[in-house]
Amino acid sequence: MLANPPTDSEHADGVVDLLGMLAYATLSGFFRLSADAAVAESLPDKIALGEMAVTEYGHFRLLLGRLEQLNVDPDAAMRPFVPALDAFHARTRPADWLEGLVKAYVGDGISADFYRMIADLTDTRTQTLVNEVLADTGHADFVIVRVREAITANPSVAGRLALWARRLVGEAVGQAQRVASEREALAHLLAGGDPAQRGKISRMFARLTDANSRRMAALGLTGHSTRSRSADRS
Amino acid sequence: MLANPPTDSEHADGVVDLLGMLAYATLSGFFRLSADAAVAESLPDKIALGEMAVTEYGHFRLLLGRLEQLNVDPDAAMRPFVPALDAFHARTRPADWLEGLVKAYVGDGISADFYRMIADLTDTRTQTLVNEVLADTGHADFVIVRVREAITANPSVAGRLALWARRLVGEAVGQAQRVASEREALAHLLAGGDPAQRGKISRMFARLTDANSRRMAALGLTGHSTRSRSADRS
Repeated sequence: MLANPPTDSEHADGVVDLLGMLAYATLSGFFRLSADAAVAESLPDKIALGEMAVTEYGHFRLLLGRLEQLNVDPDAAMRPFVPALDAFHARTRPADWLEGLVKAYVGDGISADFYRMIADLTDTRTQTLVNEVLADTGHADFVIVRVREAITANPSVAGRLALWARRLVGEAVGQAQRVASEREALAHLLAGGDPAQRGKISRMFARLTDANSRRMAALGLTGHSTRSRSADRS
Repeated sequence: MLANPPTDSEHADGVVDLLGMLAYATLSGFFRLSADAAVAESLPDKIALGEMAVTEYGHFRLLLGRLEQLNVDPDAAMRPFVPALDAFHARTRPADWLEGLVKAYVGDGISADFYRMIADLTDTRTQTLVNEVLADTGHADFVIVRVREAITANPSVAGRLALWARRLVGEAVGQAQRVASEREALAHLLAGGDPAQRGKISRMFARLTDANSRRMAALGLTGHSTRSRSADRS
């Protein structure tokens, strides 16, 4: 709010970027959840994942509706984010059902943290909408139960899944940086120029790291990737 | 109603079979529509197909709700039909986007005709529900426009798609016969024993053939598979 504040239109562009990116992310989320449902072995699992997919599509519809209210063409708003989001998914294609579950929980979790972080820099109405569409669809509990069952049945999968989760986080951070560098409006929102804003952003990054550690612990994956952990600090 | 009438419980079993089969069919339909949406090239096509997928899931939910009202375990009601429906889809995996569209229109069309035919032999409440869940999701118009565009752009695809459509019908009839022979309750419903019922069934088969011809014509595929047509009568 002091030096170099974003103009109204830059701010609006940042909001449109956020909504467009999130719209494509929820649409992709719908595709992945319904594909997971299709390959789930039992009918109850198919139904549980099908329900989550449809809930995610509802989130997509809300974002589409908001973009239309803002007189923005949803197609144009989403298109800039297709390459980065598709690249993330292409680079993190799960090798099996368990990797898919971990991706849905850890990968979507960190993405949601990013989106909320950006939303915190925008107006209240956008924040409310973003928090609504990022609300958990019941997926978290489903994944936690299934992954913990799998580790109990075969403890050796924990190490593999822990490394997989860390790779997901790395790829998510990489694509987030790509988007931030390509989209001036988002970079403006994030960089601000206001020292108070910058402080806020570092606190948000700290929260994001904490949230990721909590998700790893919930899955029972903490302490299974110590070899690569020291590399983080270098 | 005259000789060998179905008992109340046989009749109810036939209804449960119909609802269970249709529930798994709509769940499978949801998976196929969302997979088609995921591979659609443009964002507007992804959204159009995504909307249809979610509508189909709504149909699945209605059937599940009715099975629960009847105190039937939906999983148990669907399970007997998983092999035949999965076999149908495994044997008719579209080679490309156009074959997928034709399958969704011609294959789902003839399946819907089969389900309606069975429903016509049951109580009014079941008939109403079945007609509701089989109502077109807007898919028909989408497919007709896209297939006709493709034929205009490249008339040579019409012959290939016409043969593909005829194969779909053959596979659908084959799996329907398999289900009818495996499920006594459905066979009872269809065979009746009542001569009036049998007359009704042959009229329904005639209607089913007519409906299929109309769908082929709507896609612009009539007259493109004359070579195989004479074989029908042998």
